[in-house]
Amino acid sequence: MITVLFAAPDLWGEYSDVLPKALSDAGIAAQVVQDAAPETVDYIIYAPSAPLQDFTPFTRTKAVLSLWAGVERIVGNDTLTQPLCRMVDPSLTESMVEWVVGHALRHHLGIDAHIVNPGHVWNPVVPPLARNRPVTVLGLGALGTACAQALAGLNFPVTGWSRTQKSVSGVKCLSGEDGLRQALTGAQIVVTLLPRTPGTENTLNADTLALTARGAVILNPGRGPLIDDAALLDALETGQIGHATLDVFRVEPLPQDHAFWAHRCVTVTPHIAADTRASSASGVIAENIRRAEAGQPLLHRVDRVLGY
Amino acid sequence: MITVLFAAPDLWGEYSDVLPKALSDAGIAAQVVQDAAPETVDYIIYAPSAPLQDFTPFTRTKAVLSLWAGVERIVGNDTLTQPLCRMVDPSLTESMVEWVVGHALRHHLGIDAHIVNPGHVWNPVVPPLARNRPVTVLGLGALGTACAQALAGLNFPVTGWSRTQKSVSGVKCLSGEDGLRQALTGAQIVVTLLPRTPGTENTLNADTLALTARGAVILNPGRGPLIDDAALLDALETGQIGHATLDVFRVEPLPQDHAFWAHRCVTVTPHIAADTRASSASGVIAENIRRAEAGQPLLHRVDRVLGY
Repeated sequence: MITVLFAAPDLWGEYSDVLPKALSDAGIAAQVVQDAAPETVDYIIYAPSAPLQDFTPFTRTKAVLSLWAGVERIVGNDTLTQPLCRMVDPSLTESMVEWVVGHALRHHLGIDAHIVNPGHVWNPVVPPLARNRPVTVLGLGALGTACAQALAGLNFPVTGWSRTQKSVSGVKCLSGEDGLRQALTGAQIVVTLLPRTPGTENTLNADTLALTARGAVILNPGRGPLIDDAALLDALETGQIGHATLDVFRVEPLPQDHAFWAHRCVTVTPHIAADTRASSASGVIAENIRRAEAGQPLLHRVDRVLGY
Repeated sequence: MITVLFAAPDLWGEYSDVLPKALSDAGIAAQVVQDAAPETVDYIIYAPSAPLQDFTPFTRTKAVLSLWAGVERIVGNDTLTQPLCRMVDPSLTESMVEWVVGHALRHHLGIDAHIVNPGHVWNPVVPPLARNRPVTVLGLGALGTACAQALAGLNFPVTGWSRTQKSVSGVKCLSGEDGLRQALTGAQIVVTLLPRTPGTENTLNADTLALTARGAVILNPGRGPLIDDAALLDALETGQIGHATLDVFRVEPLPQDHAFWAHRCVTVTPHIAADTRASSASGVIAENIRRAEAGQPLLHRVDRVLGY
């Protein structure tokens, strides 16, 4: 019987039934508890909201399994010497694809003008076809790759950019500093799905925002700090960027006095693009514990140097 | 040298260059003219806006090729004894898929609440996954099939209904009167892409609208008369239907005094879901003329009895 410490108190209600069931379905004899003597804990289930900050006493813990895809709030914790795994939840990928494709098509089709049309204007302007609307996805991890492929499946010409060179079928893949400039040049829709690391902060800044097609749309369902907020507001002011639809922010909830809220060319969505579903996340955790117990390599293990 | 009469004066500007080029590319020696003695005309290019109504004098005309997918304004013309072909334009299919998927995701994700959010409310309610949102597509012609498959590709459970039984991979196909009731029962999004025939008028009426899930969304990019307007307004009033996004209407442009314009649960788009692009449509026409000249069967030929 192994001991699994569930160290995310505010999520206990969602997981208290489904996680033990997923473990049992995976053939693992485990007790899932909210409290335990540290030296008895085999696995820790973690979320950024967890009060747990000192991992030193967890001497027999074989892995810390995050419920979140983004691990920037734990990866720099010096007391964490145990293996750390990110959540790569198929339902999280699905909901991210739905948000990204939905907002990409919304801007592509110009849907806003029909939703808010107080003058009842019948103006049959036909948008270009998706095949003539270049889209660039920054970040080709599990989420970025799935979004790039879904957009390509709808005929958008998709360029993907990542730190290291990737290969994704149907997507033009670029990497490196020059590749970033090339990927942004002429893009009409830019999706930011990079991990948050010191190296990715302000990837979209005054310099890079100037490379897109004039009037381009920015979709950020990744991390707030990927964008220099002030540079984005400037680019919206000049019309270089036509609209920004943002799901993530440097401070969340987005403060009421932030300029994004009232800006007519910014849409705020409240960090809902991708949400971990307890049922499918529990299956991912159970599989990783099963692998660890069987001596197999963990899935989605975080590289401490890269930060993801 | 064959003679092609271009009988859609208001579209001449779009086609005057690309259609002769498409014919030449297909190896056909043809003159494309806006006026000709009827007895010298080999093919007629037709649009509903064409003043041409009497086809009797076109004694050697081998086919009438419509620039529109919907042919209800010509199919009942008794003077038309020549073969009639609908336009099935790949770019038309693409733009239809983009409109349908874009509006389906818009409603699925609840995007409107973020576009119009004057109170700046941060309310992180996560929508269900597409896999838990049943969608029904009425009509499995070229357009309906393409839309059904694109929606299924985004994980929506898709049911398709057509007059005669079809088989579409990844889509649950139903047919007949009982099949229609089954297809609508519990549907959360209904897309109407049936041809306009006497048999399809008011397919969505008080009786059938009562079958959907409560609060379902109707997307009509097909034909206005597929829906009983008064029944739809009633269903929106009771909340049985949550929203209707309509691209086509019994009278177009939609008259300013029509209740749809001001209704807070109706979005009007101005017949833009699918538009024939001159360049790709010219390719389709050239291919059909090539086939006719080579003695091969015409593509997309209309069945006069069925009306499409």
